[in-house]
Amino acid sequence: MAAFELEPFMRSHQARVEELLRARADRLVPAGTPPRLAEAMRYSLLAGGKRLRPVMCIAFADAVAKASTLNEVAVDAACALEYVHTYSLVHDDLPCLDNDDLRRGKPTNHKVYGEPLALLAGDGLLTEAFTVLASGPEPVRGMLCAELARAAGAAGMVGGQVLDIAKDREATLAYLLRLHRMKTGALIRAACRMGVLAGGGDLAALVSAETYGDAVGLAFQIADDVLDVTSSAEQLGKPAGADAEAGRFTFPAVLGLEASRRMARELVAKAEEAVRPLEGDDGPLAALARYSVERTS
Amino acid sequence: MAAFELEPFMRSHQARVEELLRARADRLVPAGTPPRLAEAMRYSLLAGGKRLRPVMCIAFADAVAKASTLNEVAVDAACALEYVHTYSLVHDDLPCLDNDDLRRGKPTNHKVYGEPLALLAGDGLLTEAFTVLASGPEPVRGMLCAELARAAGAAGMVGGQVLDIAKDREATLAYLLRLHRMKTGALIRAACRMGVLAGGGDLAALVSAETYGDAVGLAFQIADDVLDVTSSAEQLGKPAGADAEAGRFTFPAVLGLEASRRMARELVAKAEEAVRPLEGDDGPLAALARYSVERTS
Repeated sequence: MAAFELEPFMRSHQARVEELLRARADRLVPAGTPPRLAEAMRYSLLAGGKRLRPVMCIAFADAVAKASTLNEVAVDAACALEYVHTYSLVHDDLPCLDNDDLRRGKPTNHKVYGEPLALLAGDGLLTEAFTVLASGPEPVRGMLCAELARAAGAAGMVGGQVLDIAKDREATLAYLLRLHRMKTGALIRAACRMGVLAGGGDLAALVSAETYGDAVGLAFQIADDVLDVTSSAEQLGKPAGADAEAGRFTFPAVLGLEASRRMARELVAKAEEAVRPLEGDDGPLAALARYSVERTS
Repeated sequence: MAAFELEPFMRSHQARVEELLRARADRLVPAGTPPRLAEAMRYSLLAGGKRLRPVMCIAFADAVAKASTLNEVAVDAACALEYVHTYSLVHDDLPCLDNDDLRRGKPTNHKVYGEPLALLAGDGLLTEAFTVLASGPEPVRGMLCAELARAAGAAGMVGGQVLDIAKDREATLAYLLRLHRMKTGALIRAACRMGVLAGGGDLAALVSAETYGDAVGLAFQIADDVLDVTSSAEQLGKPAGADAEAGRFTFPAVLGLEASRRMARELVAKAEEAVRPLEGDDGPLAALARYSVERTS
């Protein structure tokens, strides 16, 4: 059987997410938002990117609903996930954390708008994620807010960032796995779970989403680390080799390049296995899992 | 008729809120939270303060429910409000914004934990507010998340902060009112409205809460500005006269001291009027409105 063709799927889904994010710009910056704040929030939100989390959320909603029409809740969840992801990039780039000048090939938020506004644009993006997600009559929205907040919070993304900058970081695979399960994995797992919840899936589908999200989240991070070693700045849209230079703690540094690649491939196989009950032998979710490690940027 | 005695009410309600915040420490920092992050979040959350927003939320829930037993939703809403208020203080104190060394008589979060962790502790507090608020079976929780996010977001608290640091700030009363209705007023209005929603109040009560919250929010800010002119550092727990020194834009600077005090008194009268249908001629809400301008710290 021919493998599911991801490229047209990704292109159309990414375009759909871009359109949704732009259409939601009014809700993102409600009436009364100071124009400069609105500009700073939109700058980072609409700076491109792979839109992996919203695409996954929508793909899971479609898979459990067995329909290709979007439901309003899944769309809001997809946008909220990208708001949260974007806020985390804006704050991570700040001088007191990574002090990065480039993101997605463009100057970082604080380079354009200054540190005070970048801090507040990040705060605004995080907060408006919950406005978008919570506003609407559907009872499932409360549960989605809880999912998103738990994933983004102290035992999720924020906690993972703290582990990443901790002075007493342990140079072990166990620590690295814990770090990334929190820092990037939690939000990817949430994207999958939120898609199932928004699409009205059952508990078995929720478990599939959790397993898939965990595997893809780790595979994605390993691929990121590997790309940093093997790619050029042009492909990445940020300086290549920055991890090694900063003495950052990566999968290739702990496992070596080949073992890292092998681990990523095993995780992808696990993810494909997890979604077989939802989409059969091959489909967009399995293809997305492969994409997470095969991408070049 | 003797005025409602606020002091014992405030003392008992503040103590109740302290107890609730401490009891929620487990949920604030879910299993898996890095200990240092948990410590930084607790440091600012449990650093004292007037707990005005949670007390108002609970007082409104009690007023509309005509009962003194707390409901779980109102308690979670009260805690979530204080998380959000605390996060805003932690971020406002950061070097790139106000660069303050003292808060509530103690070193600010970044003075104790460093700037990276203070930034992330603020992010964590904001996010966990929604975990606490959204986790539970009651359908009203989704609506409460929307209220809180709108109040804290780009057209609310974050937007107000942006207006406050804007270079093209206008030295007019209209600008000052808009700024404070967003920066501090939005969250105080939300505290009142969330109390009504959590307590199961009707639309008339929601309108009362909105009018009351708007008036008390402004009165509170005017009193803050007046206190900065007239108080000592010891009473305030932070350097007095800091506003004037920093050339900050305040009600006394725009209106003069006496006119500022008069405006605050008129707002308190408006707030008392708004809650008369809920608690009769005098009660905790009217007393809280008076307290917002009569306090000395």
